[in-house]
Amino acid sequence: MAETATIPLTLEDIEQLSRAVFASNGCDEPNTDALVRTVVTAERDGSASHGLFRVPGYIASLRSGKVNGRARPTIDNALAAVIKVHGDNGYAPLAIERGVPVLAEAAKKLGIAVMTITHSYHFAAMWPEVEALAAEDLIGLACVSSKPYVAPAGGSEALFGTNPISFAWPRPGKMPVVVDMATAAMAHGEIQLAAREGEAVPLGAGLDASGNDTTDPREILQGVLLPFGGYKGSAIALMVELLAGGAVGDHFGFESQAADNNDGGPSVGGEFIMAISPELVAGSGWAEHCEAFFQRYDAIEGARLPGLRRHDNRKSNEPRHINAELVERIRDLRR
Amino acid sequence: MAETATIPLTLEDIEQLSRAVFASNGCDEPNTDALVRTVVTAERDGSASHGLFRVPGYIASLRSGKVNGRARPTIDNALAAVIKVHGDNGYAPLAIERGVPVLAEAAKKLGIAVMTITHSYHFAAMWPEVEALAAEDLIGLACVSSKPYVAPAGGSEALFGTNPISFAWPRPGKMPVVVDMATAAMAHGEIQLAAREGEAVPLGAGLDASGNDTTDPREILQGVLLPFGGYKGSAIALMVELLAGGAVGDHFGFESQAADNNDGGPSVGGEFIMAISPELVAGSGWAEHCEAFFQRYDAIEGARLPGLRRHDNRKSNEPRHINAELVERIRDLRR
Repeated sequence: MAETATIPLTLEDIEQLSRAVFASNGCDEPNTDALVRTVVTAERDGSASHGLFRVPGYIASLRSGKVNGRARPTIDNALAAVIKVHGDNGYAPLAIERGVPVLAEAAKKLGIAVMTITHSYHFAAMWPEVEALAAEDLIGLACVSSKPYVAPAGGSEALFGTNPISFAWPRPGKMPVVVDMATAAMAHGEIQLAAREGEAVPLGAGLDASGNDTTDPREILQGVLLPFGGYKGSAIALMVELLAGGAVGDHFGFESQAADNNDGGPSVGGEFIMAISPELVAGSGWAEHCEAFFQRYDAIEGARLPGLRRHDNRKSNEPRHINAELVERIRDLRR
Repeated sequence: MAETATIPLTLEDIEQLSRAVFASNGCDEPNTDALVRTVVTAERDGSASHGLFRVPGYIASLRSGKVNGRARPTIDNALAAVIKVHGDNGYAPLAIERGVPVLAEAAKKLGIAVMTITHSYHFAAMWPEVEALAAEDLIGLACVSSKPYVAPAGGSEALFGTNPISFAWPRPGKMPVVVDMATAAMAHGEIQLAAREGEAVPLGAGLDASGNDTTDPREILQGVLLPFGGYKGSAIALMVELLAGGAVGDHFGFESQAADNNDGGPSVGGEFIMAISPELVAGSGWAEHCEAFFQRYDAIEGARLPGLRRHDNRKSNEPRHINAELVERIRDLRR
């Protein structure tokens, strides 16, 4: 692993720094608050690729005028089980914060409900939205797409975004089980980080510009990423692309790319979020039933429930070690 | 590939043979009809591991008295968006045939709906149920669990079933895009077929009884299967197990195993099926929007949309080539 200079920042430091940067680059208070929470919770949980690392991209799209820092998301709930959030061309966190309580209410009443976010820019992890549903004792599922970086299995031309899928299972009185993963073999942010650190990536992460296997992340960034798990992972990536684009009624990845100004920030797109009430669908006793399963899981040597590492990181109040060059770059973005 | 004797059977032959076997082993007409359709459509589509190959198992559980050949599934639709089908301890196909139209109606009215099947025995592919939803211009998603065969990533002890997930995307006027795959690296039926044929399986399909990698399907059948795609595939397998067990409120795999009499047929369990109306959620124009995406997909050299092979097989009226020993065995099951 290459030596990289880091500096220690407390979560309060991270909050102040990101607040100053967003507020001085055209975000009003509700949008700033939502973005700061997104950055701080990512760093708190050790998701380096979705925390401060994203701030220069956020700022680039505010400065280019592509993203609306004063967005006022609106909610169409004409159908009780369908919550349509129009993001007003802002960043997704505020749309999510406004929409998720409406989605949760609907799922608790109806058993299942779906929320779509359109006209929005997603540049973060998805566990915050599904964890928010799990905190209401709901099962949460979320999908988002992005510009094409990933080739369908068998091909060497990008069509899918890294197409993450996130899933949270509520455990009353405990932290939920939370999956949040790119359906690319590696997330684009992870490839970027590896390229920055000069580290090789595993074979299967992507192809170079000529369609050949490579372990060099810089070559993959010139070529194409691959889905995890071959044809089966490619099918999951397809499902995510169809839900986040086709079911939401917003851009597929290739359309996001065509619409983008390539300012370094995220491209426009949709998000699909679903909530299910296990109380209404499975019936009472669901939580104890599931705990018996989780106990079996935990008893297997070498197996860990998804999300544990993040939740462990969350417990620490120690300063986070942030790439020093990145911190300098962000400080310079304050105006 | 080992030489295996096959005999040609037309779809009519397959229908008559399976009808005679089910009807003479305690199935009444509705259950026989549903099972025959399941077997014939699997062979029609080239899904050898879910067609006649399953018949001896179906019959074993009818003869042992574990499965009710005269089941009358009942439907509880007290919540409009939640359709709960009690399978009356019969095989799943009849419960599916009765429940799916109710689910489709709910999704077309509400935008999204969920169906649970409990007290049921699933031993088939899941594309019939999601294709039935796609035929109504709905997005379909289905999950089912089974006895534990698969270790969570990192472990070498079985906890998951092969936990298939199936997904259909409607294309008005065309065949839908259909995914139907085990979240095991290989389906249990495929491992059994490879063992029968004496063929090696790819590394990563499973571990032997001591937890070591092996390509011998017979050793894997004594050991444990692995999820596809490492930790990420394991997370999808976990999601399937939680939806089919925890959200449905029926047995997890380990509970199915404890309840089973090991007669060679399937173990009791639940199925999770969901339907979404793209017309109500994405809005009108969804189909054209998605066709533009599918055109892009089809233009990529080497990439094929999931389900094409089955739909191509479906067009043929030629006899299917069935393992001769299997046909003899099934003929002997007639009474």
